[in-house]
Amino acid sequence: MLKVSKKEMIVGGSKTHYFISPLIMDNVSLQSCPATNPSMLNVHLVPHTHDDVGWLKTVDQYYYGDRNYIQHAGVQYILDSVIDQLQKDPARRFIYVETAFFYRWWRQQSQDTRRIVTQLVNEGRLEFINGGWCMSDEATTHYSAVIDQMTLGLRFLNDTFGECGRPLVAWHIDPFGHAREHASIFAQMGYDGFFFGRLDYQDKARRMKTKEMEMLWRASESLTPPLADLFTGVLPNGYNPPEGFCWDQSCNDAPIRDDPDLEDYNVDEIVQRFLNVSYNQAAFYKTNHIIMTMGSDFQYENANLWYKNMDKLIKYVNALQAKGSKVNVLYSTPSCYLQELNLANLTWPLKTDDFFPYADDAHDFWTGYFTSRPALKLYERLSNSRLQTCNQLEVLGGPKSTSGPFGEGDSDTMKRAMGVAQHHDAVSGTEKQHVAYDYARRLATGWAHCEVLVRNSLAVLSGSESPRVFCENLNISVCPLTESSQKFSMNVYNPLGRTVSWPVRLPVNGSLYNVTDSNGKAVDSQVGNYVFMSFKHILRRNRGYAKGELVFQVEAPPLGYTTKSILVYVFKFLKVNFDDTTGLLSSLTNLETNQTIRLTQNFYWYNASAGNNKESHQTSGAYIFRPNSSDPFVINKTAEIQTVTVSSTVQEVTQWFSPWVSQVVRLYEGHRELELEWTVGPVPIADGLGKEVITRLDTDIESSDYFYTDSNGREVLERRKDYRPTWDLKQTEPIAGNYYPINSRAYIKDDKHQLTVVTDRSQGASSIYNGSLEIMLHRRLLYDDFRGVGEPLSEPGEFFDGLVARGRLLLALTPPKMAADVHRPLAQGMVLQPLLSFQDGTPLISRNRFSGLQAALPPAVHLLTLSQWDKDSVLIRLEHQYQAKESETHSQPVTVNLQKLFSTLEVLGASEMSLGANQWKEDMNRLQWNTGSQLFISLTFEQISFQNLSV
Amino acid sequence: MLKVSKKEMIVGGSKTHYFISPLIMDNVSLQSCPATNPSMLNVHLVPHTHDDVGWLKTVDQYYYGDRNYIQHAGVQYILDSVIDQLQKDPARRFIYVETAFFYRWWRQQSQDTRRIVTQLVNEGRLEFINGGWCMSDEATTHYSAVIDQMTLGLRFLNDTFGECGRPLVAWHIDPFGHAREHASIFAQMGYDGFFFGRLDYQDKARRMKTKEMEMLWRASESLTPPLADLFTGVLPNGYNPPEGFCWDQSCNDAPIRDDPDLEDYNVDEIVQRFLNVSYNQAAFYKTNHIIMTMGSDFQYENANLWYKNMDKLIKYVNALQAKGSKVNVLYSTPSCYLQELNLANLTWPLKTDDFFPYADDAHDFWTGYFTSRPALKLYERLSNSRLQTCNQLEVLGGPKSTSGPFGEGDSDTMKRAMGVAQHHDAVSGTEKQHVAYDYARRLATGWAHCEVLVRNSLAVLSGSESPRVFCENLNISVCPLTESSQKFSMNVYNPLGRTVSWPVRLPVNGSLYNVTDSNGKAVDSQVGNYVFMSFKHILRRNRGYAKGELVFQVEAPPLGYTTKSILVYVFKFLKVNFDDTTGLLSSLTNLETNQTIRLTQNFYWYNASAGNNKESHQTSGAYIFRPNSSDPFVINKTAEIQTVTVSSTVQEVTQWFSPWVSQVVRLYEGHRELELEWTVGPVPIADGLGKEVITRLDTDIESSDYFYTDSNGREVLERRKDYRPTWDLKQTEPIAGNYYPINSRAYIKDDKHQLTVVTDRSQGASSIYNGSLEIMLHRRLLYDDFRGVGEPLSEPGEFFDGLVARGRLLLALTPPKMAADVHRPLAQGMVLQPLLSFQDGTPLISRNRFSGLQAALPPAVHLLTLSQWDKDSVLIRLEHQYQAKESETHSQPVTVNLQKLFSTLEVLGASEMSLGANQWKEDMNRLQWNTGSQLFISLTFEQISFQNLSV
Repeated sequence: MLKVSKKEMIVGGSKTHYFISPLIMDNVSLQSCPATNPSMLNVHLVPHTHDDVGWLKTVDQYYYGDRNYIQHAGVQYILDSVIDQLQKDPARRFIYVETAFFYRWWRQQSQDTRRIVTQLVNEGRLEFINGGWCMSDEATTHYSAVIDQMTLGLRFLNDTFGECGRPLVAWHIDPFGHAREHASIFAQMGYDGFFFGRLDYQDKARRMKTKEMEMLWRASESLTPPLADLFTGVLPNGYNPPEGFCWDQSCNDAPIRDDPDLEDYNVDEIVQRFLNVSYNQAAFYKTNHIIMTMGSDFQYENANLWYKNMDKLIKYVNALQAKGSKVNVLYSTPSCYLQELNLANLTWPLKTDDFFPYADDAHDFWTGYFTSRPALKLYERLSNSRLQTCNQLEVLGGPKSTSGPFGEGDSDTMKRAMGVAQHHDAVSGTEKQHVAYDYARRLATGWAHCEVLVRNSLAVLSGSESPRVFCENLNISVCPLTESSQKFSMNVYNPLGRTVSWPVRLPVNGSLYNVTDSNGKAVDSQVGNYVFMSFKHILRRNRGYAKGELVFQVEAPPLGYTTKSILVYVFKFLKVNFDDTTGLLSSLTNLETNQTIRLTQNFYWYNASAGNNKESHQTSGAYIFRPNSSDPFVINKTAEIQTVTVSSTVQEVTQWFSPWVSQVVRLYEGHRELELEWTVGPVPIADGLGKEVITRLDTDIESSDYFYTDSNGREVLERRKDYRPTWDLKQTEPIAGNYYPINSRAYIKDDKHQLTVVTDRSQGASSIYNGSLEIMLHRRLLYDDFRGVGEPLSEPGEFFDGLVARGRLLLALTPPKMAADVHRPLAQGMVLQPLLSFQDGTPLISRNRFSGLQAALPPAVHLLTLSQWDKDSVLIRLEHQYQAKESETHSQPVTVNLQKLFSTLEVLGASEMSLGANQWKEDMNRLQWNTGSQLFISLTFEQISFQNLSV
Repeated sequence: MLKVSKKEMIVGGSKTHYFISPLIMDNVSLQSCPATNPSMLNVHLVPHTHDDVGWLKTVDQYYYGDRNYIQHAGVQYILDSVIDQLQKDPARRFIYVETAFFYRWWRQQSQDTRRIVTQLVNEGRLEFINGGWCMSDEATTHYSAVIDQMTLGLRFLNDTFGECGRPLVAWHIDPFGHAREHASIFAQMGYDGFFFGRLDYQDKARRMKTKEMEMLWRASESLTPPLADLFTGVLPNGYNPPEGFCWDQSCNDAPIRDDPDLEDYNVDEIVQRFLNVSYNQAAFYKTNHIIMTMGSDFQYENANLWYKNMDKLIKYVNALQAKGSKVNVLYSTPSCYLQELNLANLTWPLKTDDFFPYADDAHDFWTGYFTSRPALKLYERLSNSRLQTCNQLEVLGGPKSTSGPFGEGDSDTMKRAMGVAQHHDAVSGTEKQHVAYDYARRLATGWAHCEVLVRNSLAVLSGSESPRVFCENLNISVCPLTESSQKFSMNVYNPLGRTVSWPVRLPVNGSLYNVTDSNGKAVDSQVGNYVFMSFKHILRRNRGYAKGELVFQVEAPPLGYTTKSILVYVFKFLKVNFDDTTGLLSSLTNLETNQTIRLTQNFYWYNASAGNNKESHQTSGAYIFRPNSSDPFVINKTAEIQTVTVSSTVQEVTQWFSPWVSQVVRLYEGHRELELEWTVGPVPIADGLGKEVITRLDTDIESSDYFYTDSNGREVLERRKDYRPTWDLKQTEPIAGNYYPINSRAYIKDDKHQLTVVTDRSQGASSIYNGSLEIMLHRRLLYDDFRGVGEPLSEPGEFFDGLVARGRLLLALTPPKMAADVHRPLAQGMVLQPLLSFQDGTPLISRNRFSGLQAALPPAVHLLTLSQWDKDSVLIRLEHQYQAKESETHSQPVTVNLQKLFSTLEVLGASEMSLGANQWKEDMNRLQWNTGSQLFISLTFEQISFQNLSV
């Protein structure tokens, strides 16, 4: 637990962003819940729309209702229509979820409309649910970006509607599997409950049978219950209405025809069907309340159709009560339904694992999207790092950051772009190609705005207004400045709360460079031939024409930069062997701990199912992974060793496997990890076979069937092959059914050894054999997988021959007890990377070295958020980053003195808030639930948000 | 002209059904028209929806939005949504057209909503246009049914909204060609103008070039201008918006994206495109006002989409006026647009012919629907006759008609069913099969309600409450009562204003019958063997099992019945010869006038285009007639004479042409016409060829290229092969391009002879050769014709082997000058047929013979309508039924004394009204238009509506 002195906590930040409704001071929605009937079966109709923040169309196309030939969907009209219809009858309810859309709409509304909407919100007739900028993906998102996007949406609601706009229920009706870390985040954000639609079909069948559709999810092994406890409900029909009761314009169900003078009067028939449906559903739930989701994707564009028919349904069904019917149907919301469940005061089953992987049928495992669109997944992750840097520099540089010598900059554009990118059809890779481009474009635009801010901020901090460039294409060895300049300066900004040492590789055309650090001391550097340039088959993959690369390491202070550079090393931590015959890795040794494992690494591809086998017609696609054989094809049994570089800074071996697979294996001086930089693509499909490319690490670790994967980059969960903790699994897909998402890391271990792999983006991973860990890197497919996207996942590359993806895996070999001490900082360093910027010549820099912190943070503490909130205050999130029990030294409580934290900010006061920063911590008062199980104690791993009044 | 004494005219009927708005006393809509700018190009945006009263779905399915999988369309929601949106901005306008839908909606509305709608109507923001029960078809409807359906809709609007609900503009934006009689009706109903969407593509091209898109239509050769003059405008884009400006939920055009912070801001581009579209359109019209129809089929279900984007369009386009733009765009209505055209005080071109046939491309003539669904077309016509009978008996029988010994009956159900059946996808035959069944079902239900009324009324009038049956299946020789009873009584009600003699054919199983008339006098009768029963190949076509038929003639008094029967005859008027070799008709002689023509009649089929020829892929379908050769196949060069019957009542020859074509040729004693009763079907398609079956009459009449067809059963227009009066025709389909609709008759003539054919339903007809007249009888096709119905026209029959159609053609040979004296009463007798009803045994009948008239009407006068209006008044329409100049004796003014007309009604007063009965004649004050042409004088052929206060 992070301790903050009482004094700091009670000094409140500005409350001006709170809008307190004059009518209703507290939990509005619950106070305004509709009456129910305790002696009847109460059916809660929940009118809702599910508005993807991009999928088949871009978020703005969806907002406007543009390109309806792709999909009929226009959110501006949905909100127009719902607001109209809500006004017609105070009994009518609606919930709205995606703030990215609501924000667009609200800006366009007149004061009159805003007043009406505010009243509807205050009266609980329009209720915000979930309330993040989007409904985030749960498999491929990093928790820091999820918290940010939730905060962005919740803040808008709070600023606009005050307490009445605060969502009480989390609502992930569409994401394809559910991460435990998401549940933990929601709990810490103060949500009272969580509803979702998709879970494994076997799990669902069992839960229906045992009435365990509703449960308490204990979402953290580290936090003391009920801190991360979240009441969780599985919705009965995904998020759709019961069959036959869909009255949206997009549906074809019969309307209620209640004029006896017209054809086909059908009131009696519909009422009877509804009673049957209600009783059938009630059989799977514990209380005399059931919920029905009356809506679906982009529904309610013409809300009248829905409400007019639901009005009639309610009227005619309840009219039967006079004749003895015991069904009471009403307009409601998830929070009102939840309140009734809470009042029932029952004991609920406890859930502690997660809901991955998700399968909707025997051969239909949604494990492909863990890896789909690997380049977008990387770009999203890098963008998160840049946004944190941008946020920090906005705070550290002060007001001139946003309006300074380089013009007007802002972090909001990037925040919104990242908010959109967390959507469950964005970073998930399950959108159409043109939409994927749009997400990338938004991130690029966001960064362009941030770039100005960063330039301004660095100018303020360094005292140099010389032009500064960011070499965006360093990953493909292109940087015009370094390639042409005789003399240049490089600034390295480190967004982490502690010093990092970072290897830098710059494309250059000279052969002799003097590198000095911020103190003017010489830095060890070397110029190597351009290794990639010599690859015989893949020359054209490197767009740059630099002859070589300048390699050195930089050490950057916390939240600060250094202007650079030095070094010389010995490789004291790791040793790696290659097999002479095959050219493959053969063993890995940790020289510190003196442990060695056998380690063979190679590349393979699963042949994607084309849907033509007899068990099932399911294909592999953007969502679904389904190999048509459990045995992947090896790309090459041997690797051709292309170059071997040995210097004081880096040791490199380049391996060539095929024209479309190569790898550089690197050891950096002073580093404890082995870097595997893989390049895969364009994946060939001329043979008519879709391919899902993996790399597999085969070791002599006795991992048996167990392996471990992270949840949204934070806690780590145990996985077991062909097994689910919650039910007796009948495994139908021996490969796809064992894949799990990894956001930051996976590992296998036995008593002695733990091999941890840290990744640079979200991917799918599994352990199919004892001692083996495989990670899916890239996918190129020929068929759509019938989940709506309507495109085969076959990303174009530069030359229309398929996307080339490049990435890094960092391998650490340790005893299990010491593993977290290595992989936690390694993963955080991957998530928040230093930002390099360059200035030509010898700019006049008044301050070559700067740190925003007075001292490095304690190892267990991670500065999750440092972001300008409003003119006078900043939002700070400090996180204990070690899971309970994973580190002997670090999994302990730790204390931070906020007032002594920052070097340039004076802390005048701070108030602790919920994780979403939309509620004072002291006001958090969540519903309590009985589980019947014993409480257990946890100590750490908490995130705390502060609002900090800085001047 | 029908003369009515002043006294009768000024005594007003009850005015209680008029709702006079306290705010606005006169022409509301025009007074509330939006301001325009005389120095600019004014673009009138007309928001509208086009709601088919049945087509792909039934009228009630369309109303409710049921079965949206067939077509997304729900009128209840359209009206909900439009009313909501109109309230948001007083500038917004909407027009509504189809009262069948508005009536359904209005019944369901709360008093609050009704009050709001009334205010919108009073303020001209919601304007009723056209206002009939439906938007009637113009090719296949009879004028009496059109007047009825218009009256039904207009009355509802008048009762509901008073003067502010009176439509000022007729609006036939979808019908497939336009009848002159429709224009005449609209003029006589007081409409100021008429707009439509479809006309021949060549005609349209010429009119655009010469700026003759707007004109004055002089719609009658008989009425004195401007009595039947109607300003007529061709809409620029059918009834759709300009390309790129469709903002309905059913469209995919880009919305206006005016938030500069979001993707793809497009205001400048859209404004520029709109200016271009406006100037392009203005080039084809005469004034600085143009109209744009902003809507289409079943649009505005979510009106917000339309209005939100149009609001923006208006705002941004007009904003450019500050920068010198000369385009002024505004919400408007057709009547406001029309007012501006009238104020322009220009001279308009004059149009005197009609707009048939309609072609939308070189090989795409919409002449198939003239004949499509021949059985439905007949049933609609018979239903009209029954409705008139029902209306008359409601009046004559008094209050007990609707609530009497046989229960509750009404005429309203039948009125509404007939109103729906006039729709341009109903009697036209262009609806889906299941919808055709629905129309028929509605007519049957309507008749069931009328049947009770008729039973009650006849009980009142006859004094006999004995059970009475109507033998519905006499057309297929089935009547259980006559087949089994030893003694029965028959009542014949004649809805015409004069005595008719009517041949009766009853299925019987005995061989000796005594028939006596209402005075107990014996009537000549005979029992024949069942001729159809002996047809060797088509036995199963006759469902009945009666051994023979009893044939005799009845004579029924005007608006009255007789209970029956007598007769013996000589066949003094006609002689018909058959060719011994071929068995075909060979000549026809009028014994009175002593004139003979050569007349060969046979049956043929055109091979329907399957769309696979090189000029065009157009197929024949429900709408389109396109033979793939101009030479039809003969069904049989010879006819097998099956039976010859000669009796004092009737002479019959039965001809067998093929298993699916046969005919009975009949002469009745005392009749001047030759009856051809054809039976066609099931049309075989096993050969893979679609067939369009015609009968052709080839004579030695020197008709050259000329022939004559009626317009909606009233005036007759001259037709000329390969010629259009209005433009220089380029004929591209030598057969289909010469087909015209006939509703009641067609003829060919030369100086001496006129051969007139009177039909029992609407059909297509042409004269391809000199002396030849062909009539299409039946169609069975294998392909859809791509005009939306999405089904091939292939009607199922009783045994799923295709529909059998049976019908009658009545042939009259006369000198041209005397032709009308024969064909006018013949056609009226076909339209209004006697109603037979039967009572078993010898019921006690106090009055065997009854007439509602004091005396038969003068020959020129037709009682078009006699219908109960409200408790104290009836609606009467008297019509001069002879066209100008067509009859020496009858085409003259005639006087009727209303007070001496009816035998059972006392006329307390009468007020003359517009033809639609929604305005006092004295209040009619239509806009005046300049044509630049001389007025010409016409004398007769007027219809006059009275409201008649009867006690």
